[in-house]
Amino acid sequence: MCGVFGIYGHPEAANITYLGLHALQHRGQEAAGIVTSDGERLTPHRSMGLVQAGFSPTDLAALRGDRAIGHVRYSTAGGSHIRNAQPFAVDYARGSIAVGHNGNLTNFEALKDRLEARGSIFQSASDTEVIVHLIAASTQATVESRVAEALGQVEGAYSILFLTERELIAVRDPMGFRPLCMGRLTHGNAEAIVVASEPTAFDLIGATYVRDLDPGEMLIVDATGTRSLRPFAPRTRKLCIFEHVYFARPDSLIEGASVYEVRKALGRKLAEEVPIPSGNDAGDVVVVPVPDSGVPAAIGFAERAGAPFEMGLIRSHYVGRTFIEPQQSIRHFGVRLKLSPNRAALANKRVVVVDDSIVRGTTSRKIVKMVRDAGAREVHLRISSPPTRWPCFYGIDTPTRAELIAATHTLDEICKYVTADSLGYLSLEGLVTSVRTIEQAASASPPPSTKNGEAAENGYCAACFSGTYPVPFSPSPKSRHLRLVHG
Amino acid sequence: MCGVFGIYGHPEAANITYLGLHALQHRGQEAAGIVTSDGERLTPHRSMGLVQAGFSPTDLAALRGDRAIGHVRYSTAGGSHIRNAQPFAVDYARGSIAVGHNGNLTNFEALKDRLEARGSIFQSASDTEVIVHLIAASTQATVESRVAEALGQVEGAYSILFLTERELIAVRDPMGFRPLCMGRLTHGNAEAIVVASEPTAFDLIGATYVRDLDPGEMLIVDATGTRSLRPFAPRTRKLCIFEHVYFARPDSLIEGASVYEVRKALGRKLAEEVPIPSGNDAGDVVVVPVPDSGVPAAIGFAERAGAPFEMGLIRSHYVGRTFIEPQQSIRHFGVRLKLSPNRAALANKRVVVVDDSIVRGTTSRKIVKMVRDAGAREVHLRISSPPTRWPCFYGIDTPTRAELIAATHTLDEICKYVTADSLGYLSLEGLVTSVRTIEQAASASPPPSTKNGEAAENGYCAACFSGTYPVPFSPSPKSRHLRLVHG
Amino acid sequence: MCGVFGIYGHPEAANITYLGLHALQHRGQEAAGIVTSDGERLTPHRSMGLVQAGFSPTDLAALRGDRAIGHVRYSTAGGSHIRNAQPFAVDYARGSIAVGHNGNLTNFEALKDRLEARGSIFQSASDTEVIVHLIAASTQATVESRVAEALGQVEGAYSILFLTERELIAVRDPMGFRPLCMGRLTHGNAEAIVVASEPTAFDLIGATYVRDLDPGEMLIVDATGTRSLRPFAPRTRKLCIFEHVYFARPDSLIEGASVYEVRKALGRKLAEEVPIPSGNDAGDVVVVPVPDSGVPAAIGFAERAGAPFEMGLIRSHYVGRTFIEPQQSIRHFGVRLKLSPNRAALANKRVVVVDDSIVRGTTSRKIVKMVRDAGAREVHLRISSPPTRWPCFYGIDTPTRAELIAATHTLDEICKYVTADSLGYLSLEGLVTSVRTIEQAASASPPPSTKNGEAAENGYCAACFSGTYPVPFSPSPKSRHLRLVHG
Amino acid sequence: MCGVFGIYGHPEAANITYLGLHALQHRGQEAAGIVTSDGERLTPHRSMGLVQAGFSPTDLAALRGDRAIGHVRYSTAGGSHIRNAQPFAVDYARGSIAVGHNGNLTNFEALKDRLEARGSIFQSASDTEVIVHLIAASTQATVESRVAEALGQVEGAYSILFLTERELIAVRDPMGFRPLCMGRLTHGNAEAIVVASEPTAFDLIGATYVRDLDPGEMLIVDATGTRSLRPFAPRTRKLCIFEHVYFARPDSLIEGASVYEVRKALGRKLAEEVPIPSGNDAGDVVVVPVPDSGVPAAIGFAERAGAPFEMGLIRSHYVGRTFIEPQQSIRHFGVRLKLSPNRAALANKRVVVVDDSIVRGTTSRKIVKMVRDAGAREVHLRISSPPTRWPCFYGIDTPTRAELIAATHTLDEICKYVTADSLGYLSLEGLVTSVRTIEQAASASPPPSTKNGEAAENGYCAACFSGTYPVPFSPSPKSRHLRLVHG
Repeated sequence: MCGVFGIYGHPEAANITYLGLHALQHRGQEAAGIVTSDGERLTPHRSMGLVQAGFSPTDLAALRGDRAIGHVRYSTAGGSHIRNAQPFAVDYARGSIAVGHNGNLTNFEALKDRLEARGSIFQSASDTEVIVHLIAASTQATVESRVAEALGQVEGAYSILFLTERELIAVRDPMGFRPLCMGRLTHGNAEAIVVASEPTAFDLIGATYVRDLDPGEMLIVDATGTRSLRPFAPRTRKLCIFEHVYFARPDSLIEGASVYEVRKALGRKLAEEVPIPSGNDAGDVVVVPVPDSGVPAAIGFAERAGAPFEMGLIRSHYVGRTFIEPQQSIRHFGVRLKLSPNRAALANKRVVVVDDSIVRGTTSRKIVKMVRDAGAREVHLRISSPPTRWPCFYGIDTPTRAELIAATHTLDEICKYVTADSLGYLSLEGLVTSVRTIEQAASASPPPSTKNGEAAENGYCAACFSGTYPVPFSPSPKSRHLRLVHG
Repeated sequence: MCGVFGIYGHPEAANITYLGLHALQHRGQEAAGIVTSDGERLTPHRSMGLVQAGFSPTDLAALRGDRAIGHVRYSTAGGSHIRNAQPFAVDYARGSIAVGHNGNLTNFEALKDRLEARGSIFQSASDTEVIVHLIAASTQATVESRVAEALGQVEGAYSILFLTERELIAVRDPMGFRPLCMGRLTHGNAEAIVVASEPTAFDLIGATYVRDLDPGEMLIVDATGTRSLRPFAPRTRKLCIFEHVYFARPDSLIEGASVYEVRKALGRKLAEEVPIPSGNDAGDVVVVPVPDSGVPAAIGFAERAGAPFEMGLIRSHYVGRTFIEPQQSIRHFGVRLKLSPNRAALANKRVVVVDDSIVRGTTSRKIVKMVRDAGAREVHLRISSPPTRWPCFYGIDTPTRAELIAATHTLDEICKYVTADSLGYLSLEGLVTSVRTIEQAASASPPPSTKNGEAAENGYCAACFSGTYPVPFSPSPKSRHLRLVHG
Repeated sequence: MCGVFGIYGHPEAANITYLGLHALQHRGQEAAGIVTSDGERLTPHRSMGLVQAGFSPTDLAALRGDRAIGHVRYSTAGGSHIRNAQPFAVDYARGSIAVGHNGNLTNFEALKDRLEARGSIFQSASDTEVIVHLIAASTQATVESRVAEALGQVEGAYSILFLTERELIAVRDPMGFRPLCMGRLTHGNAEAIVVASEPTAFDLIGATYVRDLDPGEMLIVDATGTRSLRPFAPRTRKLCIFEHVYFARPDSLIEGASVYEVRKALGRKLAEEVPIPSGNDAGDVVVVPVPDSGVPAAIGFAERAGAPFEMGLIRSHYVGRTFIEPQQSIRHFGVRLKLSPNRAALANKRVVVVDDSIVRGTTSRKIVKMVRDAGAREVHLRISSPPTRWPCFYGIDTPTRAELIAATHTLDEICKYVTADSLGYLSLEGLVTSVRTIEQAASASPPPSTKNGEAAENGYCAACFSGTYPVPFSPSPKSRHLRLVHG
Repeated sequence: MCGVFGIYGHPEAANITYLGLHALQHRGQEAAGIVTSDGERLTPHRSMGLVQAGFSPTDLAALRGDRAIGHVRYSTAGGSHIRNAQPFAVDYARGSIAVGHNGNLTNFEALKDRLEARGSIFQSASDTEVIVHLIAASTQATVESRVAEALGQVEGAYSILFLTERELIAVRDPMGFRPLCMGRLTHGNAEAIVVASEPTAFDLIGATYVRDLDPGEMLIVDATGTRSLRPFAPRTRKLCIFEHVYFARPDSLIEGASVYEVRKALGRKLAEEVPIPSGNDAGDVVVVPVPDSGVPAAIGFAERAGAPFEMGLIRSHYVGRTFIEPQQSIRHFGVRLKLSPNRAALANKRVVVVDDSIVRGTTSRKIVKMVRDAGAREVHLRISSPPTRWPCFYGIDTPTRAELIAATHTLDEICKYVTADSLGYLSLEGLVTSVRTIEQAASASPPPSTKNGEAAENGYCAACFSGTYPVPFSPSPKSRHLRLVHG
């Protein structure tokens, strides 16, 4: 996962982008970067680690210009090195261009081979570099035509921002895997255009959310204003449903639907599908989220189940988001550093623990043990999404299939492994229906999937649950021998 | 506020202390330190900033020995400099001694003057250095007698750990302002003794909570085991009630009472004392905590009010606890960086915002505005403690009276300032009664205040609310001319 | 100026390269880098600043493989940013290649335009990146053919090292502007091949100097041993004579000639051409070098003049080489921080100050003032090279003509500006003759210039003194609008 | 060895002190510190490492006031930790005081025991802390009386600066082991008083050297001007003769005598005492210094021997002074990193290598090998001081006797160990006579030793050569069990 932010037409473009990236920090903690333009040249600054650590006041002051794009990264392909940080900025025949990319290209290897065959050299291990080479190789007359021609050749997921000396271009891939939205920021009598992976970035900077970009839309912002092109053949939308389940911030909207509302609905549906087993003394049931991502689903579950919601696990403010940390040892250790049991809420209770997903199972196992050690009489684990059985090839750094516990174990085996008294996942149909219902309620027009009369799932990519991949990918995308260890 | 942790008899004493300090990080982020003993000499390491940033694996490996004390600090007196970091370690005639102190001495100035008059020199601006001088000046034969003699001369609040070459000594002041508890950590066939400001530190390291130290108790741990002395004249307990309101982690126990249970009880009581004003459509009410400290009270409030609990404000994981940051500019900026409005839970709702306290009012004002801008029809602010009107002289770095909004403004004025539709505080009686009730339920024996037939408040220090200070203090404790700017 | 070092066939290739770069540190302090190969892939590490600061033991341990190239850089084109540090390493169609370059390409702009026109993108502001693009664009079958084809298109100065997965290639441009030498390093029963800008790097690592590469020679080292190609049309040698005057370390040989011997000869010649003005009491004359670069010339001058050599200026060990520091403010301040007057050797003396060159005149002015303030009765400045009147376009970051004092002032005006009692420069003929004489004495075969029956100067590039540039250059090589501010 | 600098009455006191410490950097590289006073309070900043690395512009700006003292330290007692850095600054009954100390106290242990017995605590492992305790314990009415009473109790070597809120006090111990001088710095119409370990610090800042402090002199600078006290019983001067041999910078004066002149005289005397063995072809002899400290003696030797002076060993600018680095491994490695052989000056020559001293012999052995490997026919090592046989207890961190090669080996054995063809040391009489002669020539009044009719050696401490210690010391000053590992 990564996050992008862009702004056009604000005297403090770098500072605003810095704040916007802070609000998108949950989408990537490995590296952060900003490139600004003053109309004549681009100025970049990139740094490993969190946004707040990577930009000093001096760094920000050096980023001159009234337009900027920014990027927060977590490792997808290429490894944890500053060379793979974005935005990526280069000179080519027509000037300079910078690019910040959220997503993953599935035909990256083939394109790289083709480009190298004609003499291109590659300095990063990032798939994003391919896009820039394709733009440089284009003979189209305008920047937007070159970008369109380049993106016409790539496949996969991209919500992507380009910055040249003169324009800001935002593009969402034809299937709309990753979210991308635009807004307006008034300053004095003027108005800047902002774009971001999630509208939560607009709240921090005081901007107004306008709308999500459509799948396949190319938004161009320059001195003449904004205009939209749709240079690609239309495709069925394939919004990543895991954005709703886990990635996006709960206060975000995705195509108008509240992530918080979706998660509460998943919790309610989960309570219907796999309710708490009836016990002798039902009054002792408590519903406990795995904070923070499990909170909305737990609120929904508690509401539907008629059981009290309690903060039975307390999260430390001093450790970052587990899933994103690149080192296994830290992730492993992080579970205990991050969560503490709240005995007062757990002891002698029949505890329903609500979490968003199970990846390897190791974290869930520790949480169940922690809850039971705190005195819970029973521990029932409820997951507000279906079993995660397939890796993602569209921008999320999931483990290989072999590491996904649900890919190789039955429900009973997983329940036994995590040592829960019962385990229940939300069904795929329950998931999709819940998301669609919220999307429909949020939208005057019906959601895209029903336009085409296709099955409900068709509006979403749920490949990690179903194994149905909307875009083919090269059989072993991680197997290529990367000759240069980029450092 | 500060936090202390100690361990005696564990081969990985430094590592365990490092983890213990991590669990106490909420009690101080300015500096962290550890001193170990191998039975012959003390080894210290101190660093500015968070525990995880200040100790490298090399640093930890250099901290040899099977006993250790650690300290996390936030600025009380003396300013933000490494010289004021603790534990403080010195050589004196009888050997070496290190000290880590949570609290504040009220007769520090007079003692420092007296010690200087007899030739002592001071290298830090910390009140804790006085205690070490008093120990060095003592002619008593044993370490515990010297410590007792020294502490017999100081007044104020201290939960304090001492480490010498051979013993670990933990002392809680006679009034028991600050918490301090002990536990046991089994390793192999052996058992180490651990002490900590809060038992949440025990969960992380796998230790078992045994009990809180009594007010006035001196616990000595050495090769012969543990023993307790009570060298001071007995006093009425004066537990800092603000530990329950805000400082302690919700998963902690203080003298056996669950902080989480207390906070939920405060929320319930608050809902009784200042309920939601009846409106035309009560069904639209939502109860929203200011996360994370307001969450338990909001759960209790929602339960009693029969209104839904919603996460209407989303907290960023990437900014630390506002109240503790030393720089005004960061604190000011931090409010917006830390919290985002969750429109889906707020728009068109009558929102009850539950927070633990109002200090200057500036944060509350921003939160009310944020909630209203997100579409709330009404914003009702509820505070789970009485108005904070008086500064603390026992270890909490509160602003001066002039800065405390409740010291100089009426309820109506504050409500107007924070732009809420209504504002309600919990009464002092409601606060004390609620805490006492939970304490009573948690304890077989009645809580201390009733032992003496005194008013309920007498078991607690609530000076920040009432202005009734249990220990006198020098008239202008911050006015003394500090000659040396310690750096 | 930059320095390069390479090694093939040593188990500690990275460590040896680290030491080799340390010995070449005088050729560049802005950045340092090493790329190693283990036969299958390249591993790079680059860092700003000195070699010793940029490589930790961990960094060195990560640089696996038995072959390596390294580079020390000071800013020529492109500015002080890590992106411009070398070796430059990339992936292209045939594998990976890294390059470290000492020199400057004069047709860089035209080549970059041509490459961009066919779709290449540039990530650095370094002329070296052009060479890699040309290699990638080559359709030749072997690495050496591709390198030869690429270098056949560039003009200007280059002593350059390439490292691929399998071979180390060292090339010196056909005019031989910059030095490059090879040696052998025995370890156990094996022997590694080493190449370096100067043989002083061999002394530190215990290697044996074998010979300088010929101008136009391409040396290939791989598993089959070493072989030399001469793929370029022969040209008259144009060795940079300023290497002898200032850049090279005095203990180095350049094409067999001792730099130390050359500098002493320049000092002797200087004493003949512009002797000390006869005074009333000649016995009071002392000859004082500007340390360290002026020392050998001052020894030669004193010998020929029959006057005592004294260390009248003491150099601090704690400031780096003035000429190389990139910031004007530090350079300015550095003169006083670097040199102190030794009154005992200066007071009441007629002082001859011997320096290697005058660039802007500001340093000389300060030195003359310093010597006079220390009590010198007279100060006679003698320069062991001709007036520096022209900028260098072959790899030395000299100021523009407008800043070169000798480009715009007469000898008398300069003398007055630096406030010396007399000023004397070595003649161009005296310089070339002296260098040639030492070269001839060092070589069995006559030096190259006489082979062709051309004027003595023809064996050298003395463009900075004469304005006669052996290779044409684009009219305003620094004027091109660099669009991307590389950071 | 350490260095001190002080200034009174300059608006940029901190900046001037920073520059002064830079000029004294050769006297200590382990740590640096500055304390300023604005008349009301002291502000300190201390840092490990070089002056230039330890003080940012922000640090310097925070050091307010028009008076300051500074200190550069290398490890004498106590180890390499920031707590042992100086100036040491404390509060005591009469205000604040800071102290910077060059030297070593021989009765430190006894004084510390006595002070601890009366209740003092020690936070550093530095002997200097004792002095501050003694001042704090004094009941004298004025600062100067307290300082005098305190210093009256200590024994050993000290050139020491004190800074209080209102005065700067400089004291040189009654035997005058370490140098200390004063000067004046004019700024506008005002004049600041400066004091420094060596007058070379005055040159950098543009101050004028006035005189050395007398042994036993206490110079007080305050708002009323300067005045001198002589509160101690007079003693025979015992100036450390090794300051002349090695420690001081060659451009310094010590009690009016030029260190450069002294070193040249030592070289001349050395040439007389142990001349070059006559060979078949005397014309091939060259005299080569071990740079930089051996340069003046080599110039003197060459002059007297009538042989050419050559820079046969080239020193790298990128490694610090070997003798001072605290880590054995770096020192060991440093010899090869620091010096390179200049073959042109050595090959086929009979080389006389002139160095100032031999400590362990390992460095000399490597140098002789390096010279011989470079082609020297013979290598004759000449040392411009007598054999170093005894450790120093007055402030120089020499090895123990067991490590001093001359303490346990004969001249022949040392010659054999260092693999020289011949080895010659200067005699003790030759050393003392040479220094005295220069001192006499520099002074109108005869040097102190002859005042008392004592032997020439009596004016100097030459204990490291003779074993005659002017001040007794505790038998094992390094053996005391330091209980606290200061960190």
